Amino acid sequence: MKGFPDFQNKEGRLVVGECTAKDLAATYGTPLYVYDEEALRRQARTFVNHFKSDSYKARILYASKAASFAALIRLAKEEGLNLDVVSEGELYTALAVNFPPDRIIFHGNNKLDRELEAAVEAGIGFVVLDNLSEARRLSTIADKAGQTVEVLLRVNPGVEAHTHDYIKTATSDSKFGLGLATAGEALQVIQGLPGLRLRGLHCHIGSQIFADDAFIKAAHIMLDFMVACQGQGLSMDILDLGGGFGVFYEDGDQPIDLAPFLEGLAQDLEKEARDRGIRLAEVWLEPGRSMVNNAGLTLYTVGDIKRLADGTNYAFIDGGMGDNMRVALYQAGYTAVLADRLDDAADNTWRIAGKYCESGDVLIKGAPLPDPQPGDILAILGTGAYTFSMFSGYNRLPRPAVVFVKGKDHREVVRRESLDDIIAQDLLE
Amino acid sequence: MKGFPDFQNKEGRLVVGECTAKDLAATYGTPLYVYDEEALRRQARTFVNHFKSDSYKARILYASKAASFAALIRLAKEEGLNLDVVSEGELYTALAVNFPPDRIIFHGNNKLDRELEAAVEAGIGFVVLDNLSEARRLSTIADKAGQTVEVLLRVNPGVEAHTHDYIKTATSDSKFGLGLATAGEALQVIQGLPGLRLRGLHCHIGSQIFADDAFIKAAHIMLDFMVACQGQGLSMDILDLGGGFGVFYEDGDQPIDLAPFLEGLAQDLEKEARDRGIRLAEVWLEPGRSMVNNAGLTLYTVGDIKRLADGTNYAFIDGGMGDNMRVALYQAGYTAVLADRLDDAADNTWRIAGKYCESGDVLIKGAPLPDPQPGDILAILGTGAYTFSMFSGYNRLPRPAVVFVKGKDHREVVRRESLDDIIAQDLLE
Repeated sequence: MKGFPDFQNKEGRLVVGECTAKDLAATYGTPLYVYDEEALRRQARTFVNHFKSDSYKARILYASKAASFAALIRLAKEEGLNLDVVSEGELYTALAVNFPPDRIIFHGNNKLDRELEAAVEAGIGFVVLDNLSEARRLSTIADKAGQTVEVLLRVNPGVEAHTHDYIKTATSDSKFGLGLATAGEALQVIQGLPGLRLRGLHCHIGSQIFADDAFIKAAHIMLDFMVACQGQGLSMDILDLGGGFGVFYEDGDQPIDLAPFLEGLAQDLEKEARDRGIRLAEVWLEPGRSMVNNAGLTLYTVGDIKRLADGTNYAFIDGGMGDNMRVALYQAGYTAVLADRLDDAADNTWRIAGKYCESGDVLIKGAPLPDPQPGDILAILGTGAYTFSMFSGYNRLPRPAVVFVKGKDHREVVRRESLDDIIAQDLLE
Repeated sequence: MKGFPDFQNKEGRLVVGECTAKDLAATYGTPLYVYDEEALRRQARTFVNHFKSDSYKARILYASKAASFAALIRLAKEEGLNLDVVSEGELYTALAVNFPPDRIIFHGNNKLDRELEAAVEAGIGFVVLDNLSEARRLSTIADKAGQTVEVLLRVNPGVEAHTHDYIKTATSDSKFGLGLATAGEALQVIQGLPGLRLRGLHCHIGSQIFADDAFIKAAHIMLDFMVACQGQGLSMDILDLGGGFGVFYEDGDQPIDLAPFLEGLAQDLEKEARDRGIRLAEVWLEPGRSMVNNAGLTLYTVGDIKRLADGTNYAFIDGGMGDNMRVALYQAGYTAVLADRLDDAADNTWRIAGKYCESGDVLIKGAPLPDPQPGDILAILGTGAYTFSMFSGYNRLPRPAVVFVKGKDHREVVRRESLDDIIAQDLLE
């Protein structure tokens, strides 16, 4: 299907792997998060196989904040990916599936002492430092544990990607990292701290980036900055360029064509590093959304239908803003289909509203659809990233189950919350 | 403290009940949701004692979507409140503390069959219907169970409260309820459906309303509509006016003075009903936010401090957008204080950012504060509503504990999520 090559239309029916969406909904109930396992693996291989170099080690890190649950992290392990975690909870999930600690990188601003201690204890590969006071805290923790932690520093190259304010991360007043003007001094301090071994720099210019020139431009600025650092006696050989590659959500989105882009980027970096006389030991990319989003969809059951006097047509679904916060948070756009009526022409424009007790709980303002009927399965496509992971328990609605489909097979990989799960932390006495 | 009469400044220290915020943070850790139990009870009594009538039964329903957990629902029970629930999960919470079912009202759009069945089985007091197809579904379910369910219909009086788009609920294209133009016809059908007993009308004009005239205006429109309905042979004697009373979050907010407003409203409704020749058996109000918000605050620990070259000062806290989605969702404003330094003059304007891996995770853009130090306890005041209840597990950070303070005593009423809780639904095999 357009923008979603891994989902098929077979005689008007939406098919994931070799399973119809309708059968999956009947088996597991709705709302339901569904991933095509083969599509996830293909996308992992696209990154691993096309971002390669003979002159440096190319690492692909899955940014697990996009979606973190045991089965997905295990898949990332099996595909040889490295892993970004931003919390003790994400680290715990990774360790629960025996993800090799040396392939884990700890990210984020304001890592807690407890989290840094857990990271050091697990022996994870790298910590990307956000600022100098964090560097000092980690130094104390590592030194006390008698260990040396390899670190990078997050810096802001000052390149703006054209994206939503909330997910634009490298502007001058970003909460993340340090500006280039002040980073040099911080790096000098970090290089001298016990328990730390300075290895390189990280940047992340934003999310849902459609223009590859912004990405390349940021990379060159980073290389220039590495040259300047070298001149000041700072020894660094890892460049982490972050992620942020855009995906297709709805008509008009034009994602970067990954395979040629990644190959071009890998070569460009070889040349640009050589031209600047920099020895790069490793270059990292951190896809999150672009790794998992378009292998996923959410299935809902259509409930009540309401046609208002002003012409607005509402189709209510059994989930909404809690299982997909992105619309209320970012006014994100999505594509909806009726899973068993793909070949039916659109009758009207439908507003797809959830069942959360809030006016803003509308997932799509106007979707051209054949008139939905109660009981129809409605699929929202491309929900593999930042839906499960941002789930809100608002209205005490249960978190949906997650299902992996592999050809004819399917299995629950996260079970649906029960009513008892919902009140599990409430103390009743 | 200004806007928060239940929190005290004692020699520069923030005190809830007779406990310092700092001691609570030390005992239970941070982030921590804290409620003053006495303040909750006082607010419940303000509603119950000031909204009274000799000519109709005045019911106060706590809208539990504002904050639903066992201890709070038990408190609502003890204070004689009635209860709004909008899901099976909220109903389950209420039943877990033996909330009398006949004092529970089921609300919301697109209630699922499963939820309606649970409501009928529990024998709850009333269902507020959103639309006709829901009415038909409930009729079938009630009839099959051999029961008669008392119902109200939600209608839109077309009054706009000045509030955020997402929480403005009675405009003509709202997903909730039916417009007055079409409601009459629907009521005729509902009155004839087996298993249902039509009792009245519900409206809710919005949230965080500061102008009492909007509320009164909506009430009069509803009474006029009841007259019109009476003329068409529709028998209804309950009027549910919803909630939406604004609270103080930050300087400039001027909430309605509840006690006189409620007394005036109660009298006004007596007179207006009498003038129209309507016999009102019951009038309901549904405070949610205004019942609990300002009895609550959230405690955080200040972590890293970052001063950017452009003059932006960041103080990072150990929570953020996950435990308070309202800022990212509605650009909501809040008041922050350093819990042990209330008497210190502000040194600078501080941006209070959380530890979620997202640029938008900023709880306050510019708070005038004495320069925060790592380890300081920072309190955000007035977080009793729509914070715990909207909690998002983003970044796999644990949901904070909830503590009730009563004078010198304090107790955990919701325990903090553990790492094992976070992965509890992940299937590891």
